[in-house]
Amino acid sequence: MLQIEPRVLKGFRDFLPLQELTRREMIKKIEASFRSFGFLPIDTPALEYAEILLGKGGGETEKQVYRFTDHGGRDVALRFDLTVPFARFTAEHRNELIMPFKRYHIAKVWRGENTQRGRYREFTQCDFDIVGSDSTAADFEILLMIRSTLQALADSITIRINHRGLFNRFLASLGAEEKSPEILRQVDKLAKIGRDGVRELLEAITEKTESQKILDFISFGEEGDFDKTLKKLTGAAGEGDDTRRLEELRRFMKDAGVEEGFVLDPSITRGLDYYTGVVCETFIDKLPGIGSICSGGRYDNLTGIYSKEPVCGVGASIGLDRLDAALEELGLRENRNGAASAALACLEPDDAGKAQRAAALFRQRGLTCEVFFEPKKNTQMFILAEKKGIPWVIIPNYDTGRFTLRDIAQRKSREDLDIDTAAKIIKNEDNG
Amino acid sequence: MLQIEPRVLKGFRDFLPLQELTRREMIKKIEASFRSFGFLPIDTPALEYAEILLGKGGGETEKQVYRFTDHGGRDVALRFDLTVPFARFTAEHRNELIMPFKRYHIAKVWRGENTQRGRYREFTQCDFDIVGSDSTAADFEILLMIRSTLQALADSITIRINHRGLFNRFLASLGAEEKSPEILRQVDKLAKIGRDGVRELLEAITEKTESQKILDFISFGEEGDFDKTLKKLTGAAGEGDDTRRLEELRRFMKDAGVEEGFVLDPSITRGLDYYTGVVCETFIDKLPGIGSICSGGRYDNLTGIYSKEPVCGVGASIGLDRLDAALEELGLRENRNGAASAALACLEPDDAGKAQRAAALFRQRGLTCEVFFEPKKNTQMFILAEKKGIPWVIIPNYDTGRFTLRDIAQRKSREDLDIDTAAKIIKNEDNG
Repeated sequence: MLQIEPRVLKGFRDFLPLQELTRREMIKKIEASFRSFGFLPIDTPALEYAEILLGKGGGETEKQVYRFTDHGGRDVALRFDLTVPFARFTAEHRNELIMPFKRYHIAKVWRGENTQRGRYREFTQCDFDIVGSDSTAADFEILLMIRSTLQALADSITIRINHRGLFNRFLASLGAEEKSPEILRQVDKLAKIGRDGVRELLEAITEKTESQKILDFISFGEEGDFDKTLKKLTGAAGEGDDTRRLEELRRFMKDAGVEEGFVLDPSITRGLDYYTGVVCETFIDKLPGIGSICSGGRYDNLTGIYSKEPVCGVGASIGLDRLDAALEELGLRENRNGAASAALACLEPDDAGKAQRAAALFRQRGLTCEVFFEPKKNTQMFILAEKKGIPWVIIPNYDTGRFTLRDIAQRKSREDLDIDTAAKIIKNEDNG
Repeated sequence: MLQIEPRVLKGFRDFLPLQELTRREMIKKIEASFRSFGFLPIDTPALEYAEILLGKGGGETEKQVYRFTDHGGRDVALRFDLTVPFARFTAEHRNELIMPFKRYHIAKVWRGENTQRGRYREFTQCDFDIVGSDSTAADFEILLMIRSTLQALADSITIRINHRGLFNRFLASLGAEEKSPEILRQVDKLAKIGRDGVRELLEAITEKTESQKILDFISFGEEGDFDKTLKKLTGAAGEGDDTRRLEELRRFMKDAGVEEGFVLDPSITRGLDYYTGVVCETFIDKLPGIGSICSGGRYDNLTGIYSKEPVCGVGASIGLDRLDAALEELGLRENRNGAASAALACLEPDDAGKAQRAAALFRQRGLTCEVFFEPKKNTQMFILAEKKGIPWVIIPNYDTGRFTLRDIAQRKSREDLDIDTAAKIIKNEDNG
């Protein structure tokens, strides 16, 4: 028979049980946090009309998208993020949603970009948004969710926030309003290429004196004192709705007792075009080099290209693959082998029915219980249990209806136990 | 701005929170059952090399597959089932897997087939398999898992089983060995087109007397008595490994006390080519018309085209969309609105920080607590809570640190409560 080499595409991955369970453990914690704030999950198709997905996409995105013609001659594409499908979803289901609508969406997305360390062509995004509310309270809730969700996972984190409107107003005061999108994109590279790199890029598009003023402006946050930075920014750009919103946000942080961990950083701009208000990036204090693990912001008009009625909102997205890598590096990843609590021995092929009946008694008592029907000897069975990380082997006596338990780690056995005692020992509830 | 109509592709669906949570509830129960047997989850890429996915696919499959050329000029396709990726996975990771390997995989697959009632182009499969064991004990474990998993969800079910080897041996005794794959495919249509329909199809490919013998053979199970049917089949095909395996399976069912719900039905053939041993289909007793909700069987050589060392196994697949539709029809679907246990009122925009601090106290006590920052009046807030299905509204008094609770269903309030009492009332643990 013709052989085909078994392999996955570059940038794609298999998840073996240990990896899959470990990821799920992380996702479970994130979801529990989202749910505690009353956010609910949705799902959307992996494949959509290309015009739906690319209506808002820039040139860079378009090049990376998996796009093709389907059997019906439709121009279709795999989703490359969860924001665009959510915009389409919100426009399409607007009348079914109770506003403000608080949703999260954890799902795979696909981008055919160059693979590098920690970058994949298939990866999982985790978006959470509040749409239908323009309030600072909504901005604050998203920021608070980032803080409480990620602090619980990654220990000490810093959320750097800024306001796109404030930055734009400052640029307008310099007469550089038209170049604003380009300037924001260059400033966004600060963490990557440093101050001198940004200066060079800025001087290519603005006057030297303006470049200097922009560099001064984005340095106002260096001290890390939120209130002082806000004063400096207000001094440079003047008072406005944006500075008042930042003041309000700061008061909310103090009132909620969460002011620590938030930094006002005017160099945070977020490259994406649709942000219009507060923007943020989140860094793990012990691993600043890995970049932001959760970014987001406020947008005025999510549904713009799908609907005449604008829907505003605020949200953020956790990069799960980057977070997972970070947790591993920090030794904070909880590896789950997912092994059953016990394995029930079935050394005689003829006993498979009785073995399953006995195993069912343990399952009824809330235990996970695998049946080992392959090993031929007790010792083989104990080795298999050890390899699989199963702590107990159950050896049933079908004549007496009683059980012997083998403690794999201690290499000790306890004999002649009734079912309830045996189940309690495995659950570590035995007081005998 | 140019408007694009917000819509999904035909055969694709959005899942709003109620739908998404209801599906998850079903999946959660299925997973808990699988885990109780010691099965572990894996995941594989949505996109693979087309030659990997289509190596085993027949003509029908190939027409339905979403296949295209990616940016790197690779011939790629979206997975159309979870069996082929699992075969590739097993061949690729063989040395990392502890045999027998028991895994499950719940994930979306894509087929561009004609949409009809209950058929989608994007749908979820739920596969569970044991590979690396040729034992009847493994066959039995898969059958038992179907039984205990689906009985818990869909109440009364019947699992119809047969043995492909036995059927083939019977056909060989008629001298119709070569036509066997085609005959099996026609017999597989029995439930759809009835006995006369199958007779017509059989007579087009075999002699009239042979067709009659085949029709007699597949009718041997009509009485529904497993042991009698097995005797008749053995009479027609003679004794063999296959009849001995069926006898053994039957003994295991009796020993495990699960003989009810299993029917030996020689008309069950499963159209797919790779099955070589026991095959099965599962029907909901109250809804026989919807067809099988879980089908599977034993295969000799899963990894055939990817590896020279054959890996045998046995497994089955639950059609989640069909099961979901069936549960809804039976009134057994547990709809989950997923609403928070309580909503904390924030009528004054200025109070958002304090409101989140108060809500955090309830979250710390294990409750899900949404903050309502949009309504402007108490009545609006109660209506919103009712719409969202949130049973309690919390009205904090920031001066006293105490709370008023509004019971939305009863339209009654309880005033001046401390945090612990308030949390207990919401949890329904208050004995006052």
